[in-house]
Amino acid sequence: MSFDRLIRNIIEKQNPTVAGLDPKLDYIPDYIREEAFGKYGKTLEGAAAAILQFNKDLIDALCDIVPAIKPQAAYYEMYGWQGVKTLTETIAYAKEKGMFVITDGKRNDIGTTMQAYAAAHIGKTDIDGETAEAFGADALTVNAYLGTDGIKPLLEICRNDDKGIFALVKTSNPSSGELQDRNLDDGQTVYRTMGDMCEKWGSEAMGEEGYSSVGAVVGATYPRQLLELRATLPHTFFLVPGYGAQGGGAADVAPAFDEKGRGAIINSSRGIICAWKKEGCAPEDHAQAARREAIRMRDEIISYIGEIK
Amino acid sequence: MSFDRLIRNIIEKQNPTVAGLDPKLDYIPDYIREEAFGKYGKTLEGAAAAILQFNKDLIDALCDIVPAIKPQAAYYEMYGWQGVKTLTETIAYAKEKGMFVITDGKRNDIGTTMQAYAAAHIGKTDIDGETAEAFGADALTVNAYLGTDGIKPLLEICRNDDKGIFALVKTSNPSSGELQDRNLDDGQTVYRTMGDMCEKWGSEAMGEEGYSSVGAVVGATYPRQLLELRATLPHTFFLVPGYGAQGGGAADVAPAFDEKGRGAIINSSRGIICAWKKEGCAPEDHAQAARREAIRMRDEIISYIGEIK
Repeated sequence: MSFDRLIRNIIEKQNPTVAGLDPKLDYIPDYIREEAFGKYGKTLEGAAAAILQFNKDLIDALCDIVPAIKPQAAYYEMYGWQGVKTLTETIAYAKEKGMFVITDGKRNDIGTTMQAYAAAHIGKTDIDGETAEAFGADALTVNAYLGTDGIKPLLEICRNDDKGIFALVKTSNPSSGELQDRNLDDGQTVYRTMGDMCEKWGSEAMGEEGYSSVGAVVGATYPRQLLELRATLPHTFFLVPGYGAQGGGAADVAPAFDEKGRGAIINSSRGIICAWKKEGCAPEDHAQAARREAIRMRDEIISYIGEIK
Repeated sequence: MSFDRLIRNIIEKQNPTVAGLDPKLDYIPDYIREEAFGKYGKTLEGAAAAILQFNKDLIDALCDIVPAIKPQAAYYEMYGWQGVKTLTETIAYAKEKGMFVITDGKRNDIGTTMQAYAAAHIGKTDIDGETAEAFGADALTVNAYLGTDGIKPLLEICRNDDKGIFALVKTSNPSSGELQDRNLDDGQTVYRTMGDMCEKWGSEAMGEEGYSSVGAVVGATYPRQLLELRATLPHTFFLVPGYGAQGGGAADVAPAFDEKGRGAIINSSRGIICAWKKEGCAPEDHAQAARREAIRMRDEIISYIGEIK
């Protein structure tokens, strides 16, 4: 239940990282784009086909060493329903290859509407008695600005269907403090208050590996807050963006982990999927460049936190 | 620019309401479902086909009296990419019929990712030099928990492409107060602080009709806060959910409007699209029942606020 599957996958691979699949067209080698545009033209369909090929190459090259992928929904919606179809196919492909899939959608709403998002992304959809999986991810990022009404509908799916959510707590961007760092009248910050809500919601959906199904997004760019939140939220698993391109390093993310090396998964998107550009290797070698970067990142983080037990 | 087109459409129709298209399968008459399932089976594709037909019926029956629709993304994502395709087709159909389209997606992210959402929902997508519209709505609801970094990428599209956004300020649900009603250390509530940010962001994208391109979502279920926010946010246009099924009435939403009867649009979803069930009319008459309810709602609100000038 909950993030148990993810934690076990991390321990098995000794790799607490997730590859962010944020496939902008610019990131994709020409030869893949040209093949897709040759078939479908420079259309949404063509873009969606190029992205799918790029993602499959990456998944093939990463699946034995990286425990999870995190597709960012925005980069698929950008290419219309055709792009969203590619998201569906990417999720299915990664699961086939044994990867844990976190859809980064930052979804939020209330009541029956949140139920619909929950069914869509991590649950099942009822169609007049028949059941279908719309997207079928293992976990979903959510925004809890609306409070408990926006989280409750997800907890049941987390419990019954072995799924998880990550609520935004302290995001990695420079302006995250405008609201999140403000003190409430009890002297506690907004992000800390949100973190405490995660811990509370999670108490209704605890796993066997020490963490609940309600995780938190905490940015690598704020190591002090990572340390504070790790200490105060003992059952909340962290998804940590902001490593690499956004400026966070291995030393910055080390405080996200508990004494067993558990408790967090570090995301890298551009760092991994654009490694071929940075490396300057042959475009046909793009997925192996991603693999080399994923190994470098894994080894760097493990050198700070030691064996994951 | 901004919400000028929406405001003019509201004045022309003397109707400050928007029909929320949240088409759960349960809401759709049997004869429509059966036709779709007969063609495609009880599949995501079948559900998507039923929803599209239902929506088209509603748009045909409402387009001359209701200025806008607000499709809720969750109810389309629930039916997979096939449902998302129906969202695209619904938006296109409503625009053809002259309606203003607000996609209720409550999207949120930062930097290039928010640019991708902006391009997806209200902007244009570049495909190696060719331009395509992914969804093509006129406005998008957003969640600004991440601060200015999540809003900036939208402002340029609002200015250049005549589009708008609505940021969540005070939502209509019972638990909205858990975070939104808390006082910050300067004595101001979180929702008021968020409202002030909308006013500030909007100053970079003012329209000609008195309101900026940055609107706010403020629930009908909190009339005192509506009154407070209307007084303090003079250039922020309000999208007001919570009328009808959630318990808000015309008296509750009246404070959302300025002295000219402008400044807000009131949403009804289930109230309108499920009117045929409540009325108990023939299923084939569902769209006309929606029209009758839309007229009743319009007349009720206008009786409180008078002519919109």
